[in-house]
Amino acid sequence: MFTKEELVEFCENANKNYLSHISIDCVIFGFHEGQLKVLILKVKNHDEWYLPGGFVMKAEPLDTAADRILKERTGIDEIFLQQFHVFGDPERGKVHNDMYKDIMPDNWFANRFITIGYYALVDFENVRPAPDLHSESCRWYDLDELPTLMLDHKLILNKALETLRLQLSYQPIGYNLMPKEFTMPELQRLYETILDKKLDRRNFQRRILAFDILDRHEQPRKGGAHKAPYLYSFNVEKYQHALRQGLSGGW
Amino acid sequence: MFTKEELVEFCENANKNYLSHISIDCVIFGFHEGQLKVLILKVKNHDEWYLPGGFVMKAEPLDTAADRILKERTGIDEIFLQQFHVFGDPERGKVHNDMYKDIMPDNWFANRFITIGYYALVDFENVRPAPDLHSESCRWYDLDELPTLMLDHKLILNKALETLRLQLSYQPIGYNLMPKEFTMPELQRLYETILDKKLDRRNFQRRILAFDILDRHEQPRKGGAHKAPYLYSFNVEKYQHALRQGLSGGW
Repeated sequence: MFTKEELVEFCENANKNYLSHISIDCVIFGFHEGQLKVLILKVKNHDEWYLPGGFVMKAEPLDTAADRILKERTGIDEIFLQQFHVFGDPERGKVHNDMYKDIMPDNWFANRFITIGYYALVDFENVRPAPDLHSESCRWYDLDELPTLMLDHKLILNKALETLRLQLSYQPIGYNLMPKEFTMPELQRLYETILDKKLDRRNFQRRILAFDILDRHEQPRKGGAHKAPYLYSFNVEKYQHALRQGLSGGW
Repeated sequence: MFTKEELVEFCENANKNYLSHISIDCVIFGFHEGQLKVLILKVKNHDEWYLPGGFVMKAEPLDTAADRILKERTGIDEIFLQQFHVFGDPERGKVHNDMYKDIMPDNWFANRFITIGYYALVDFENVRPAPDLHSESCRWYDLDELPTLMLDHKLILNKALETLRLQLSYQPIGYNLMPKEFTMPELQRLYETILDKKLDRRNFQRRILAFDILDRHEQPRKGGAHKAPYLYSFNVEKYQHALRQGLSGGW
């Protein structure tokens, strides 16, 4: 939260530099070895938690703004963010409005904001989030151990999760999350974690192979197993093609 | 196009009633008996074509604004519009700016607008589009016979079409487009028209049946055919469930 002086300065700067009525919020899912988490910030000295977000500069493309905001708030760079939904309930900003109305009624946050949601799925071992000046912490939370989120951020997170799950039906996923070589059960674990349910082993294998984005290696994994499992890799060319054109296991 | 007097009045009204920087554009696909079309308006007395669009009132929910805009521009009511993408290129409004800058430099259209795209797929036999005061015509165009569209409206249309095609992979479609009872080849024709490609008959049947949204009727269609085809209907309950939860042929 801002002091009155900080708020006045912020509003002056915001009115000059940002588009009014428009904000961006980012849902960053982190996956690593069968665990799915989400990145959440905590307001300094206040028990309030929120998604990384911010505003769009007057001449800035939306995707550039989303990248900048994520970098500023979390220190995280070069993540492929995807726009997924716009949230525009006229009452969604009420909390922000109430927070500052006594010290400055016509402040920037009292405006109605329509927020554009962006999401990404990354390997959380590869990114080192860091809080910005206004936040006390910026860290990964398990989906089932989330703190109470401000504004409509829980709704935004849920919609992002729904979108990620739907994405499994029409886009390849996992290239930056799996090791270079992996077994079919290891890949199945990624899908199961995102969907939060068990999948049938044979259906999974049949469907994922029909997408035609995997190469099977000649040599099975070495080790003590009774029957060594086959190893697979993503075929980068076919994977990229499917990202653009949709999965061939489609229509 | 506005005269100077009209422009001044419009801007005064717009500044008072609408959120700045935000607009809505609607892509309405029409299907009927194997034909796919899109709804396009033509500017009065000008060779300029555009998608139905408009602005969001200061306290209006986004979906309500989209419904109102579609109704105002085309006379079409009670269509289920879905938000699909936001278009925010800082240069996307340049045409509008250039159009009026000589008669009123700081006009409403000279602002940067971020536009929220909505789309719908309807039976074009069931809707009667009508132009509004500013448009000369409002009618269905075949996708391969489109006039040149203003601004980035071709990009918006293409993105809507891409979204509609992807939707076939994760959502049921066709309930309001097919007759109550239909054959498998008739349903396949809907998918082929949207995808603009031929599909394999057996793969189509296997996949659509796996979605578990159809009821097969006991009695095949009567008629002169050598072998009468089976008739199907959508199972409304399962169809609605799949709309909310995704297709069961998924993961």
